[in-house]
Amino acid sequence: MAFSPALTSLIDALRILPGVGAKSAQRMAFHMLQREREGAAHLARSIEQAVENVHHCKSCRMFTEHEICDICANERRDASVVCVVESPADVMAIEQNTDFGGRYFVLLGRLSPIDGVGPNELGLDILRQRLAEGTVEEVILATGATVEGEATAQYVADLARQHNAGVSRIAHGVPIGGELEYVDAGTLSQAFSGRRAL
Amino acid sequence: MAFSPALTSLIDALRILPGVGAKSAQRMAFHMLQREREGAAHLARSIEQAVENVHHCKSCRMFTEHEICDICANERRDASVVCVVESPADVMAIEQNTDFGGRYFVLLGRLSPIDGVGPNELGLDILRQRLAEGTVEEVILATGATVEGEATAQYVADLARQHNAGVSRIAHGVPIGGELEYVDAGTLSQAFSGRRAL
Repeated sequence: MAFSPALTSLIDALRILPGVGAKSAQRMAFHMLQREREGAAHLARSIEQAVENVHHCKSCRMFTEHEICDICANERRDASVVCVVESPADVMAIEQNTDFGGRYFVLLGRLSPIDGVGPNELGLDILRQRLAEGTVEEVILATGATVEGEATAQYVADLARQHNAGVSRIAHGVPIGGELEYVDAGTLSQAFSGRRAL
Repeated sequence: MAFSPALTSLIDALRILPGVGAKSAQRMAFHMLQREREGAAHLARSIEQAVENVHHCKSCRMFTEHEICDICANERRDASVVCVVESPADVMAIEQNTDFGGRYFVLLGRLSPIDGVGPNELGLDILRQRLAEGTVEEVILATGATVEGEATAQYVADLARQHNAGVSRIAHGVPIGGELEYVDAGTLSQAFSGRRAL
C-alpha cells in the first residue's frame, strides 16, 4: 500500500527544496491538497513562469527577466564602482539599507574547491571582462566574513588589481548596538586590528 | 529596487507551504533558479497533476486518484472493521507497521471548535452513512492522544454506538523500548489505569 502515484510524485518532487526532507515534503503535499488547492495551482504557475523567464543578468549575474537587470540598465548608477557579493539576497540587503549608488557583481556562491566551486562557477570571466573595459575604478568586496568568503575576496582583489582597479573590503567589527562583552573573539580581534584614527 | 516580478511572485507563492516564511521562501526560490531548474519544472508539473487528479475517496476520505481508494476498493479488506484516523499519514503508518486488515476513515483533522473545525469539516456525515448501512461491526478509534484527539474519539464513539457498532480505542501506555523512569507522567498514569490482566 502506498499513496496514489500523483501524490507520491508530488512528495518526491518537493524534496528538491532546500531543508525539505521526507516528512516535511509529505506535510507540504497534504497541506496543499487539503487546504490550499488554489494556492498550489498558483505556486505551480509561478514556478513555471520563473523557471521560464528569470535568467541571470548578462553583466552582473543578478536575477532578471531581461538581458540586463534594472540596476545595470540604470544609467544613473555609477559604473565605476562595482560591489561584489555572494548572492542576490545580498544585493537586496545593500539596496534596502545603504545608499550605495554603484553597480554589482553577484558571484552566486563562493570559492569552495571541496564542493567543486572554482572561479569559473562564480562567473569571474564575466567580471574580468567588465574590468578589462577599463571603466571600473573601485571594486568593493562584500563577500561574507567566512573562510570561503575571505578566500573569494582575496581572489577577486587580485583580479581587480591586475586591471588596475582600486580594491576595498567592507568593514568588519563590532555590530552597531552590540555590547563588547558579548562579541565573539574573532570579531573583537578584527575590530581592534581594523581600528581607524578619529 | 525589488526582485524581478516573476521572482517576487514565486517567493510570495511559496509562502503557502506550511512552515515557510519570507526568508525560507527566498532561499527556496534562489535554490530552484540557481541549481534546480529542471527539478523546479518537474515540481510545477507534479503540483498541477496532483491538484488536478488527487481527490478524496468518496468512502473514507483518503487521498486517491479514483472515486474510491485502493483500500476501499479491495474486496479482501474486512468491511466490518473501520479504523478512524486523523490524517492520510496515519493510514500509511498503520499499513506499514501493523497487520490491520480492515478499512479506514480519515477525518482530515480533529475537532477543534476554536479553529472552526466541527463534525461537518471532519466528514462525519459520510461516516454516519457508512455506519447506517449496517455492515460495520467495530470502530477502532486511532486519533491522536491529544486533548482534541480524545474529544474527537469521544464524538466518533458516540456516533458508532448510536448505530450499534462496537467501539475500541488503540492502547495508550509506555512505548515499546521505553524506560519507565523517562516516561512522562500522563503516559505512565494512562499505562496504570489501562493495565490488563495476564
